[in-house]
Amino acid sequence: MQQQLREHLERIVSLTDEEFALVLAQFTSRQVRKGQFLIRKGERVRELYFVVQGLLKLVHTDAAGKAHIVSLAMEDWWEGDFAAYLAQAPATLSLQCLEDTAVWCLPLAGYEYLCQQLPQMARFFLVKFARGGIAAQQRIVSLLALPARERYERLLRQYPTLPQRVSKTLLAAYLGVSRETLSRLADQERPPK
Amino acid sequence: MQQQLREHLERIVSLTDEEFALVLAQFTSRQVRKGQFLIRKGERVRELYFVVQGLLKLVHTDAAGKAHIVSLAMEDWWEGDFAAYLAQAPATLSLQCLEDTAVWCLPLAGYEYLCQQLPQMARFFLVKFARGGIAAQQRIVSLLALPARERYERLLRQYPTLPQRVSKTLLAAYLGVSRETLSRLADQERPPK
Repeated sequence: MQQQLREHLERIVSLTDEEFALVLAQFTSRQVRKGQFLIRKGERVRELYFVVQGLLKLVHTDAAGKAHIVSLAMEDWWEGDFAAYLAQAPATLSLQCLEDTAVWCLPLAGYEYLCQQLPQMARFFLVKFARGGIAAQQRIVSLLALPARERYERLLRQYPTLPQRVSKTLLAAYLGVSRETLSRLADQERPPK
Repeated sequence: MQQQLREHLERIVSLTDEEFALVLAQFTSRQVRKGQFLIRKGERVRELYFVVQGLLKLVHTDAAGKAHIVSLAMEDWWEGDFAAYLAQAPATLSLQCLEDTAVWCLPLAGYEYLCQQLPQMARFFLVKFARGGIAAQQRIVSLLALPARERYERLLRQYPTLPQRVSKTLLAAYLGVSRETLSRLADQERPPK
C-alpha cells in the first residue's frame, strides 16, 4: 500500500525516503467493506481519500430521495466532498463503497502541513486539482451536450473495466439515462458473432 | 488593472512589491470587443485569462452546431480551456466576449515560472483550482439532479447581476432549459406589485 502511494506521487514529483516518510505520517489507512460509507450526507467531512483498491461512488441524493452519481472512483483516484472537506463542514454528498475498498485517508491538517512543508506536495496537489478541474469540465460538457451513445463510449474509454464491476442500474445513473437506454447502448456495443 | 489583480491575489496570499512585479511581468493585458473570441475551437490555446472587467462565455459546440455553455466568467474570474492550456493543445471549447472585456493573459510558461519561483503563487493557484473543482462538482450536481427552478435560483445567487447583462436565450442555454421554461421561471421570480 505504501509503495502504491509513493509510485502514484512520484509520477508527478520526486521525494526522498525522508520526505516520503513525512508524507506517509499524515495519512492513515483504512479498509472498508462493500456497502459501507466513507462520507455520509450531513456528517462533518474530515478526510480526503486516495483509493488503493476498490470502487466508490460519490452520490447526491435529491429532495425526492433519488440518487445521482457525481463521480466514480477506483484505484489511484482521489475522492471526497471537496467543498465540505476544505470548509470542514457537513457533507452534502455521500461516498459509498461498491466493492471492498482500501484507502489512504488525509485529514485537512495533514494536507495543509504537506503543502506548506514540502513544495513537491504543493506541486503534486496543484497538478492533481488542475486535472480534476479538466475532468469536471469534460463531465459538464458530456452532461450538457453529448448524446447518450457518446457519453457511454466516453465512459468506457475512461473506465474500461467498469461494466464488469458495477450494475447496469448504476451505469445508467452515472450517465443520466434510463436503464432501458443503457441496455440498448450496451447491446449495440457487442462485437458481431 | 494592476491594483485589481494584486488585490485579487492578496485575498489568498501576501506578496511584496518586488514579488508582485515578478508576477505582473508574466502577464500581458488585453482589451477585447463584445463578440470577439479569446479562444476559438481548433486553435492552439496559449493563455489562461483573468477577467478585469466584462463578461465571457465558455462554449462547447456539438456535432449539430448547437452551442452549450460550460461556464460564464465575469470580473475576478479565471477562465480558459484548461485541458488545452495545460497540454498546449488545440481548443475543444470557445471563449467569446459577451461585453467589451479587459483581461490579464497568462501563458503557460509564465504560470509554470510563477509556481516554481514563488511558493505563494503555487499556493494561490492551488486554492483557486481547489475552489474551481468545488464549483464544477456543484455544477455537475445541478445538471444531474436539480429541477429547473432550483438551477435558476442557484444561478441568481451565484451571478446576481447576470439577468441584466445577458439575453434570456443565453441564460436558458446555461441552465439547459428551453427559452419558454426560463421565461416562466423569471416571471415567477418577480416580486408582486
